[in-house]
Amino acid sequence: MKIVIIGGVAAGAKAAAKIKRLLPDSEVSIYTDDTHVSYSACGLPYYIEGNFADYTSLLVRSVEEFNTSGIDVYLESKVEKILPAQQQVLVCNKKHAFLVDYDKLIIATGARPIIPNIAGVKDYKNVYSLRKIEDGIAIRNKMLESKRAVVIGSGFIGLELLEAFVRNGLFVDLIEKNDRIMPSFDTDMSELIRQRLDQSNDNNFEIHTSEIVTEILGENGVATGVKTLSGKYMPTDIVILSVGIKPNSEIARDAGIVIGDTGAIRVNKLMQTSIENIYACGDCCEERHLISGNYVWVPLGSTANKEGEYAALNAAGVYSEFEGVLGSSVTRCLNTTMSMTGLTEAQALEFGYTPVFAIVSKTDKVAYMPNVGEITLKVMADKASGLLLGGQAVGSIGADKRINALATALLGRLTVQEFKRNDLTYSPPFSPTIDPLLTAMSILCKKVSRPC
Amino acid sequence: MKIVIIGGVAAGAKAAAKIKRLLPDSEVSIYTDDTHVSYSACGLPYYIEGNFADYTSLLVRSVEEFNTSGIDVYLESKVEKILPAQQQVLVCNKKHAFLVDYDKLIIATGARPIIPNIAGVKDYKNVYSLRKIEDGIAIRNKMLESKRAVVIGSGFIGLELLEAFVRNGLFVDLIEKNDRIMPSFDTDMSELIRQRLDQSNDNNFEIHTSEIVTEILGENGVATGVKTLSGKYMPTDIVILSVGIKPNSEIARDAGIVIGDTGAIRVNKLMQTSIENIYACGDCCEERHLISGNYVWVPLGSTANKEGEYAALNAAGVYSEFEGVLGSSVTRCLNTTMSMTGLTEAQALEFGYTPVFAIVSKTDKVAYMPNVGEITLKVMADKASGLLLGGQAVGSIGADKRINALATALLGRLTVQEFKRNDLTYSPPFSPTIDPLLTAMSILCKKVSRPC
Repeated sequence: MKIVIIGGVAAGAKAAAKIKRLLPDSEVSIYTDDTHVSYSACGLPYYIEGNFADYTSLLVRSVEEFNTSGIDVYLESKVEKILPAQQQVLVCNKKHAFLVDYDKLIIATGARPIIPNIAGVKDYKNVYSLRKIEDGIAIRNKMLESKRAVVIGSGFIGLELLEAFVRNGLFVDLIEKNDRIMPSFDTDMSELIRQRLDQSNDNNFEIHTSEIVTEILGENGVATGVKTLSGKYMPTDIVILSVGIKPNSEIARDAGIVIGDTGAIRVNKLMQTSIENIYACGDCCEERHLISGNYVWVPLGSTANKEGEYAALNAAGVYSEFEGVLGSSVTRCLNTTMSMTGLTEAQALEFGYTPVFAIVSKTDKVAYMPNVGEITLKVMADKASGLLLGGQAVGSIGADKRINALATALLGRLTVQEFKRNDLTYSPPFSPTIDPLLTAMSILCKKVSRPC
Repeated sequence: MKIVIIGGVAAGAKAAAKIKRLLPDSEVSIYTDDTHVSYSACGLPYYIEGNFADYTSLLVRSVEEFNTSGIDVYLESKVEKILPAQQQVLVCNKKHAFLVDYDKLIIATGARPIIPNIAGVKDYKNVYSLRKIEDGIAIRNKMLESKRAVVIGSGFIGLELLEAFVRNGLFVDLIEKNDRIMPSFDTDMSELIRQRLDQSNDNNFEIHTSEIVTEILGENGVATGVKTLSGKYMPTDIVILSVGIKPNSEIARDAGIVIGDTGAIRVNKLMQTSIENIYACGDCCEERHLISGNYVWVPLGSTANKEGEYAALNAAGVYSEFEGVLGSSVTRCLNTTMSMTGLTEAQALEFGYTPVFAIVSKTDKVAYMPNVGEITLKVMADKASGLLLGGQAVGSIGADKRINALATALLGRLTVQEFKRNDLTYSPPFSPTIDPLLTAMSILCKKVSRPC
């Protein structure tokens, strides 16, 4: 049995290791256009920040380790074409092109940064996006000799790099075309993120919302500033493009594989694409939302890891349904933790629910304890049934763990009425007497139609 | 309508405030033998430690606040007898005894420390147990002039006071009659707590297990040391009795109210005792365990708070079932967080389950991040059905929040197979790529009878 895996960062690397354990006699090979395999891309912003000294800490399994376990890894070897009728892929490396046979193919091509349509965006060497190891190394090296940065886009990567740059003494202009930062959160919660960042701003960054960069200016191949639609000019030593990512699904589309409305590869619960013997996993494919059942695209490292495992199980003949995701995620920026799970307000409306909300701000411990922080929690339920739909938390360390309790409730399809009975741990250093989650449920009980 | 509440720390204070809001025209009075009302008893060890300067931080609602909202509070007024036939209680204060009529009576008499049968235990003024505000003040004042302490009993209070004393520069002998500390945890987890404490021991405490104090020695009314069964002598400036608590249920028993096998007052889901118009809540009463349905006695502040609310609702005529508890709890000692929910191993066996376990030790963040701690998580499920039964966590900050996700799963009666699909948040500063909870579920999947 010959198993070919395209891509080897998270899903691909996981799939390779798993399938080799399941089928020790199979031939497993990873082809990737990347210079590295099996690494923690989520850790790149923290490497740039200097949370650890050596980027090699990010490497999970080396090529040698893969080889030792009998897996061949071909770096800088791009799969240019999938030939489903022939069960072959066309691979090109620097020197030549060649065809590789497969019995099972696993597509784990990931996603890539969106390059915004800005004049000069490709003209300067100090304009970066962050996706791969070498991006991280290049950004860190440039940062160390920089005084100012412009970050375009204020999602996860944008805010993580804002933190990294500010912690390294740079002044940062953060530019967001929407009227609020972190737009994947609900409006009220992203406004709260903004407030908390403003409070921790020691004149070392400026946030510009509803602002569009029209041109990157520079000389001798080096960007020196950006111009915006409103007429501002911001000088800079480094420009980051962090306006989002898109799935690397073109190679699948070219092969006739069905692509979902999200633009990512559509798979069933067995991680099978529309073409026999071809599986997909990780950032290149869609998943089902566990709450709504709708197809969504949630490109996250935790999801990629799981999907890689399920793709391997099914490719190896072990029937294993991947049910879907809740879209649970977390990051931090300076002293603010932000985390979410389940549907956003917009998704809830789109998927036909009538959402009701509770927003609760409480201390993260009993107020008399030292080092008290604040957590604001938004919990959403369906008005008619009381079914919990999602939640978001912004605040001090620990905000994210409330979201994990909520994710578990979503998994179990609990209602507000049921969660209200939850017995959560309490001790003064760990939470207020009544956890913000329970306070939120009490409020929601008064807003849902079914009695509590 | 005259509502009389006996006791006013957590459950009683909560019940009073709630019922007055529900029935503004009712007469609500609290009678307590305590010198204070409505305070955070759980915060006393942290007051002693010096985490905050003034014990008044622990007071939730003052007598004046109760009075302003129309609730009468009688401090140092002990209810000596309940007369159900007459619907009266007999109250004694320093000056006189009197009878008080009630339409509804809520018993919230709490619990009291067990005084172990040790020679000299009542002979010395520097022998304390910790339950009330004045205990906390006395212990703190004595601690500030002490160099050595003996703590007898290594449960929550014992370990919390070990921390408080060590942080204040005292040398502590911690004495436990069992062969392990924190015996409410499973054996393996309490051994792990011991290991972690030993590691953080900078020669400032000694733990003596399987050791029984036979005599407290002293002179002029001041204890100066303890003798143990094995013949040891430990000099000390302060002795703490923290061998456990028992419910203040005698007054209910005397009135003919049914007492459960646990020794606490038996109540139904409406917090009603066996006698009409008499309710009980808080540490003096039993509760149902949400997993097994058995009666248990789980005296915790979080539970007392909820039970006070349910007692008030039902006494006010608002039908509200309190389903029960999971026994979720948490504390810390030095740098170790310890937390549990659901059944212990012993309870699971007692209640007829065939428990299987997974024990997982993982970093609390991705290992390359700074300030990495370790969390050990034990998760238990029923072998036949895969139903999750409970779990315990020991380790760095954040250990407890895994337990809250697990508590939510217990509430929803999730199986291992279901929880394995959970979508928990991930980012390098917050957890490893695969959360310890999910690793535990993968291991359990191989141990339960139903396939995963």
